[in-house]
Amino acid sequence: MKIVLLGSGNVATHLAKALKAKGEDLVQVYSPNLSHAESLAVAIGAEGLNDLTEIEQNADLYIISIKDDAIESVAKSLKNVTGLVVHTSGTTDINVLSSQVKKAGVFYPLQTFSKGKELSFENIPLCIEANDESQLVILSNLAAKISRQVYELGGEKRKVLHLAAVFACNFPNHLYALANKILNQNGLNFEMIRPLIAETADKVMSNLPENVQTGPAVRADENTLNKHLSMLTDMPELQNIYQTLSDSIKLTLK
Amino acid sequence: MKIVLLGSGNVATHLAKALKAKGEDLVQVYSPNLSHAESLAVAIGAEGLNDLTEIEQNADLYIISIKDDAIESVAKSLKNVTGLVVHTSGTTDINVLSSQVKKAGVFYPLQTFSKGKELSFENIPLCIEANDESQLVILSNLAAKISRQVYELGGEKRKVLHLAAVFACNFPNHLYALANKILNQNGLNFEMIRPLIAETADKVMSNLPENVQTGPAVRADENTLNKHLSMLTDMPELQNIYQTLSDSIKLTLK
Repeated sequence: MKIVLLGSGNVATHLAKALKAKGEDLVQVYSPNLSHAESLAVAIGAEGLNDLTEIEQNADLYIISIKDDAIESVAKSLKNVTGLVVHTSGTTDINVLSSQVKKAGVFYPLQTFSKGKELSFENIPLCIEANDESQLVILSNLAAKISRQVYELGGEKRKVLHLAAVFACNFPNHLYALANKILNQNGLNFEMIRPLIAETADKVMSNLPENVQTGPAVRADENTLNKHLSMLTDMPELQNIYQTLSDSIKLTLK
Repeated sequence: MKIVLLGSGNVATHLAKALKAKGEDLVQVYSPNLSHAESLAVAIGAEGLNDLTEIEQNADLYIISIKDDAIESVAKSLKNVTGLVVHTSGTTDINVLSSQVKKAGVFYPLQTFSKGKELSFENIPLCIEANDESQLVILSNLAAKISRQVYELGGEKRKVLHLAAVFACNFPNHLYALANKILNQNGLNFEMIRPLIAETADKVMSNLPENVQTGPAVRADENTLNKHLSMLTDMPELQNIYQTLSDSIKLTLK
């Protein structure tokens, strides 16, 4: 497939490399910042550009992988293309595209991407959607080339998945950061709790989290809970989070 | 070393097997429940018992690995032993032991243990403390046999570490459970977010969490934050957690 990539951020970069590795023909990379566009374009043997009017009009697939609120305006520049136009957003409705282009779809990789951190795309769930059955088949075949977990998912379910992802990824990472804050204030190092973080995630690879909850709240150990709350007196924000999450864990006991 | 184990739960079981594997001589396992004691005792070639008056008085080391609030009463039954008595608790003061026995210490493995889940003890940080320098050396040598990460830590720092562990382990696991609740209510499966959970933990193995935060809150993406909050209207408890943690993430931007 002849593919044009619009975007050069973390998702765009990981996706482009995975597609390239499977022999897809990435012809152009667009970014408003030309050096960003060219930097990714060079890595995948494409042309880098920062002018939307120079976009190849006869590609098979256009992947818009940019900030949610910029998707619509970029889609407007693709009004005349005949190929399929998809975005990679968890929260953006397909209608943002189908109001602009004839063939619209979604190609949402459910993962947290960081610059410089290699990832095996095989293990990344890909959620796809299209406004037409034949386009869905095309997306499905493409997705199956790079991932072992492909889900056809309507917009509502995709948004639910994105919300769940905030609870499963963004919030846990912030709690790691708060743990580090507590450690640092007491001259202790984050290194000490890395094995615990790894094991906590590893446990739910083969269990459901509600079946492997540990800690003072699930034991209803009020003595330890109160000790911890009093240790956080000087950090009222963390104290509030401790109380809120412990209360929520205790609700599961009822 | 001749070792008596008092307790037969998850920590006791994992610790006993790790010590046995390094050739330590575990002679007895005590539990108020005889079948629990014998079940672990058989696995490590020790004697199982449920009567504290039958405890071997001449062992080198007594490891009390039971619920925090039961440690003191079990320690009382060890008043006459000459060996070192340690507990494995993150939150219990060493004085709970040293008020009862001559040689007291702490041998705290910082990890979340579950029945039936194998763990390599090598990668588990062990925090040790003793009320006497010579006993600390003994504990340090024993700890180094089974773990690559051994820390000599006073009680105050150990309690801080335990508090940080609640943020890094118990709370993230509960958030995984809430994510699963959201998925289930919408006919989606936990399997879909397992790769995301694994990658989120893996990222902080080589980064600090505050440097790899992703998601709508750290982007100050109010549009998505508001959409998510409105999706949680029927789950006010989760809505409150979403708001609390998002506000906390936004505070890091200032």
